[in-house]
Amino acid sequence: MTTDSLDTLDTPAALIDRSRMLRNIARMQQRMDALGVRFRPHVKTAKCIEVARAQREAGARGITVSTLKEAEQFFATGFTDILYAVGIAPSKLPRALALRRAGCDLKLLVDHPDAARAIAAFGQAQGERFEVWIEVDTDGHRSGIRPEDDALLEIAHLLHDNGMQIGGVMTHAGSSYELNAFDALVALAEQERAGCVRAAQRLRDANLPCAGVSIGSTPTALCAQHLEGVTEVRAGVYVFFDLVMRNVGVCETSEIALSVLTTVIGHQSEKGWAIVDAGWMAMSRDRGTAKQAHDYGYGQVCALDGTPLDGYVMIGANQEHGIVAPARPVGEGDSASGEPGVATDNIATRLPIGTKLRIVPNHACATGAQFPEYHALSDDGAISVWSRFHGW
Amino acid sequence: MTTDSLDTLDTPAALIDRSRMLRNIARMQQRMDALGVRFRPHVKTAKCIEVARAQREAGARGITVSTLKEAEQFFATGFTDILYAVGIAPSKLPRALALRRAGCDLKLLVDHPDAARAIAAFGQAQGERFEVWIEVDTDGHRSGIRPEDDALLEIAHLLHDNGMQIGGVMTHAGSSYELNAFDALVALAEQERAGCVRAAQRLRDANLPCAGVSIGSTPTALCAQHLEGVTEVRAGVYVFFDLVMRNVGVCETSEIALSVLTTVIGHQSEKGWAIVDAGWMAMSRDRGTAKQAHDYGYGQVCALDGTPLDGYVMIGANQEHGIVAPARPVGEGDSASGEPGVATDNIATRLPIGTKLRIVPNHACATGAQFPEYHALSDDGAISVWSRFHGW
Repeated sequence: MTTDSLDTLDTPAALIDRSRMLRNIARMQQRMDALGVRFRPHVKTAKCIEVARAQREAGARGITVSTLKEAEQFFATGFTDILYAVGIAPSKLPRALALRRAGCDLKLLVDHPDAARAIAAFGQAQGERFEVWIEVDTDGHRSGIRPEDDALLEIAHLLHDNGMQIGGVMTHAGSSYELNAFDALVALAEQERAGCVRAAQRLRDANLPCAGVSIGSTPTALCAQHLEGVTEVRAGVYVFFDLVMRNVGVCETSEIALSVLTTVIGHQSEKGWAIVDAGWMAMSRDRGTAKQAHDYGYGQVCALDGTPLDGYVMIGANQEHGIVAPARPVGEGDSASGEPGVATDNIATRLPIGTKLRIVPNHACATGAQFPEYHALSDDGAISVWSRFHGW
Repeated sequence: MTTDSLDTLDTPAALIDRSRMLRNIARMQQRMDALGVRFRPHVKTAKCIEVARAQREAGARGITVSTLKEAEQFFATGFTDILYAVGIAPSKLPRALALRRAGCDLKLLVDHPDAARAIAAFGQAQGERFEVWIEVDTDGHRSGIRPEDDALLEIAHLLHDNGMQIGGVMTHAGSSYELNAFDALVALAEQERAGCVRAAQRLRDANLPCAGVSIGSTPTALCAQHLEGVTEVRAGVYVFFDLVMRNVGVCETSEIALSVLTTVIGHQSEKGWAIVDAGWMAMSRDRGTAKQAHDYGYGQVCALDGTPLDGYVMIGANQEHGIVAPARPVGEGDSASGEPGVATDNIATRLPIGTKLRIVPNHACATGAQFPEYHALSDDGAISVWSRFHGW
């Protein structure tokens, strides 16, 4: 806890609306419970112990991480069931071994025969039976082996026949971020589910073990109609949500739990600009809404109490300067046509020097990463400082 | 020093080529010496004591910072002459006062009468004669008062008549980043110089003190033909340079001193992709070259020894995954036509699992900010760990 209030907090600061966060956590967990699957949140979004504890208290089982540093930090505070959901570089195996030797139930990921060989060789040399999951590509957006690819069985045999434990198959339909229609999201969720279940079936048909079937992204997790054959779901950004997710269609702006507190430090009145002390160092350089139906620039401007100032976005950002203004009336990826008209001639009187604003970000994972800590705001105005990991 | 070598360093890591950095520092300092001005480097780029010490040893006098945390951290290690080059929010004045009371020669910046009033009122109440510089707008890209604006004299009087010290006028022609022709850069540098000198003259004509005339951006500093009337120049990114600066035309790729060390963790061979363990969390989301003549995606791919792999860039990035591939042959902002043809069918043999690569970034300030420390590489292969600040 700090004695600060929103009025006195130094800016820029990363604010978490605690009630919104808890509602987002409950919504996802209830959905996973209803679909009959375990939920393993991806803690890369917040990299914050307090956030992960709230997810666990709501019913999450295990966590997903994107770096070994996350695994180490979360393990040190009592999280043991950890899936490292990035294909492991062979040079990182000693660090993974140290975690397992310390008692961490760390699961590795692989999508390449050479990496499987390296894991098996290192595991045999060290006498460690690594638990390894195989990454499946169900939408072509990044990594993984396609369910029908011969390499799937090759990798599984390289692991199994050399004494490693196959934990299961996992996939991430990250292309869901590019969609914005419910029917398309439902279809992609089914493609993600069916592809991963198919990969598991191929392993089982070859008498290889495959207990786990892990899928997930925030949009597909929230749109899947059934999850037959799936054992667990992973999602990360749902805990805060953000403007990209709002444009995808899986949350409202009023559900976004992360914002950046900032102070007006100047104006260019004839341009309708207010200059604020949150630039890209605070917001991140993420322009994820640039190619979506509604371009929010570097973020939606809100009053100190979180109420959106309709039509005002951060139109530009330098390192420690943000330019707040009415959305450009015309522009690539911009759909400001839906916004009410905004007067531009009164910026200095509407937002005088010293005004505190909140900027809702495009991408919560990227914006959060710019800060060493969050300031978590309760409904009663109390503020807690929650630290966040940085680096690898 | 660490016992690591490039081969054994954990990835991703932020590498500084120490020789290149020292050459960049020497080049700028020699130029400033020849032009007869003091040089006050902007330490926001590296936020690193060792880098600032190298700049000071080469002849820099004073530093420029973008946050009060930088001022505090650099002051704690012996830097006393510090210009905080972002218009101060009135709520930050107690923190600035604490620095001055501790002996820091902190100079504040203002471009608005209301902020000047707040400084004067706080200074008078605390018995502190703040040194304040006035920000001048010489290219319309962000903050500042235009040289001919009545507000310039209003601000100066608010400060001077209420007992504050006017340190001088300063400007930053940040629109130089949008240029790529030498003649245009020369013209903008002259515009920056002349506008700032004109603002100083207006103050002096009104019998107001204005000893300092501070200008600068990396491109204009490197292209200015003379600096008559200027007392000091500021620049930041020149210390590392980056691909944006290469496109602006003020450095070669071979002069860029910052890169991200990464490891190949997978392939999608039919697409010609190698997947690496540096995503946007390592590179940052900065796509500064997207609108320039040569679009490098998220960065230029180089071999472990720093040799560019011509035509290979990071075409996409997720949080901890980068996609390395031949540059898209056609695309918005892409000028890959100048590149030699690149075979796409041998990515897995050319860049096998475990291959270490270096990625040269678009924007050194943004990429550096993603890391808690740099690994500074000497010509003899020794690696030193230099920490870097984070947060505000």
